[in-house]
Amino acid sequence: MNYPETLKKLIECYKKLPGIGEKSAERMALATIDLDQDILNTFSESIKTIKEKIKFCEICNNYSESDRCEICNSPSRDKHTICVVEEPKNIIMFEKIGTYNGLYHVLNGLISPLDGINPEQINIDSLLKRIENDDIKEVIFALKPSIEGETTTLYIKKMLTKSDVVVSKIAHGVPMGADIDYIDSLTLELALEDRKRVDN
Amino acid sequence: MNYPETLKKLIECYKKLPGIGEKSAERMALATIDLDQDILNTFSESIKTIKEKIKFCEICNNYSESDRCEICNSPSRDKHTICVVEEPKNIIMFEKIGTYNGLYHVLNGLISPLDGINPEQINIDSLLKRIENDDIKEVIFALKPSIEGETTTLYIKKMLTKSDVVVSKIAHGVPMGADIDYIDSLTLELALEDRKRVDN
Repeated sequence: MNYPETLKKLIECYKKLPGIGEKSAERMALATIDLDQDILNTFSESIKTIKEKIKFCEICNNYSESDRCEICNSPSRDKHTICVVEEPKNIIMFEKIGTYNGLYHVLNGLISPLDGINPEQINIDSLLKRIENDDIKEVIFALKPSIEGETTTLYIKKMLTKSDVVVSKIAHGVPMGADIDYIDSLTLELALEDRKRVDN
Repeated sequence: MNYPETLKKLIECYKKLPGIGEKSAERMALATIDLDQDILNTFSESIKTIKEKIKFCEICNNYSESDRCEICNSPSRDKHTICVVEEPKNIIMFEKIGTYNGLYHVLNGLISPLDGINPEQINIDSLLKRIENDDIKEVIFALKPSIEGETTTLYIKKMLTKSDVVVSKIAHGVPMGADIDYIDSLTLELALEDRKRVDN
């Protein structure tokens, strides 16, 4: 005996999500039967329409349900600063801290010649145009600390040598609450290099 | 800035599933956008119709897409043995080991006077009728080792005193591969009590 067909299909679908294995998918599928039909309808509808409803902002490539995202549309944001991120979901993380009030730019990838990703394949051109045309004073790179992240930052920085925009990148170091024993040596090296004077 | 409406709804739906918190739900919702529309259609359809498609077998209350489940319908199963379980999903576990070839009976609950669950509220009557009418030789209780599980087993056993059906229950003890140090004392007590002679 196996699961009935509908359950089997649902288990297979749940298994396509990140971090969901056979056991979790089974548990989730069985729990789905017990949800109210109202919730199941909303759930089903959201899944069906998510691809057509979630578009990308024409300015910064953030997730958006209209042509321009909430951030690009907002009159209260600082229009002279752009934070450059790899993926739309990175924006959510920065918005959660709530202290950054500038704009964003989603590259949708990082330069990686080994994987065949060249500068033309990610949203660099549109970033350069924004910097040139929109009176941008500072570009903050918030890419992951990897060879690809560094390459991308340096490449864009080079394209901006003639511009007088300030280029910065977020600090790398030991995260709050972490035990020094468990931090990788590259992070520790960066943390040591970027040490700050303690003033009294 | 928050997630667009459709994503927000989807995150809320994922959070209703067992073991899924805010972070996992967000990760799953974002990954949903990247799935193929074909998969999203199947996914959406399964969720929408699961409640109407998944019925309960009229004989044993197992999950089924027709009136009778595959197991009750199968000509190759031993029709004289019933394994009594609490929930339909327990059947899947037994079917996975593949050595049990009898029938099942799902109680859909356990007797628990403290929670207001009396014998009439779970599928005991239908079990007694099956034992009486269907020439059942053995009833194996596979309920969880708790006060409710024991109460339910003893209650049904008492109802069967006049019948000559054999009543048994699955063994409780130290699971394979477990470290004795981490086993609770009740399990250890049961394991000691039910010790088996080692023959050479």
